[in-house]
Amino acid sequence: MSEESGLAPEIAARLKRNEDGLVAVVVQQRGTGEVLMMAWMDDAALQHTLTTRRGTYYSRSRGQRWVKGETSGHTQYVHEVRLDCDGDTVLLVVDQRDGACHTGDHTCFDADLLLGPEEEHAFG
Amino acid sequence: MSEESGLAPEIAARLKRNEDGLVAVVVQQRGTGEVLMMAWMDDAALQHTLTTRRGTYYSRSRGQRWVKGETSGHTQYVHEVRLDCDGDTVLLVVDQRDGACHTGDHTCFDADLLLGPEEEHAFG
Repeated sequence: MSEESGLAPEIAARLKRNEDGLVAVVVQQRGTGEVLMMAWMDDAALQHTLTTRRGTYYSRSRGQRWVKGETSGHTQYVHEVRLDCDGDTVLLVVDQRDGACHTGDHTCFDADLLLGPEEEHAFG
Repeated sequence: MSEESGLAPEIAARLKRNEDGLVAVVVQQRGTGEVLMMAWMDDAALQHTLTTRRGTYYSRSRGQRWVKGETSGHTQYVHEVRLDCDGDTVLLVVDQRDGACHTGDHTCFDADLLLGPEEEHAFG
């Protein structure tokens, strides 16, 4: 896949892809540090992200690459791309335009709190 | 798996597990927002995390559950647990004691920068 993706061999060699050829991606807002979403990339999506600074992913359900915001307008400008210690997860630090979540929420983690801080109480 | 895990049925029903029965987990430092690590949970690991507030995961390579810091002492106190919009990723907000990464680094994303900010230059 790397040969066709154009991804630099020294980066491709450090990736530990899953059985579908993908690495996990965590996307974080620059400045606030909010975790916006989690997604997947193949080599070509990573290469597209590195060269264009537009967050680009691989949809497992649709079986194709997609550029975040291409249809919604909720684009991501990518400031940093980091690879984790075992090479199977990428961290993007981005400026997110409008909501990152397809539901309209700011992040994909806004709606469903399973456990809250011990000392605080929820109102409303 | 839920029956044995003790996980509340209303939570178990919202999880969209992968073919190995796992959900992805993003772990973030409280306050700073740093993304510390990415890992996986089965139902029992999530239940253990919710009830003990100690970050508990499932190791795919070892095929067993593990409590972060159990051997290293680098424990995590869990302040918040959130589920994402499609139920396949959990976000933990934690207080991390010492380094989160098995390499000794503070986070698993410290060592390998694939792309840096456009305006800045790297020295050293």
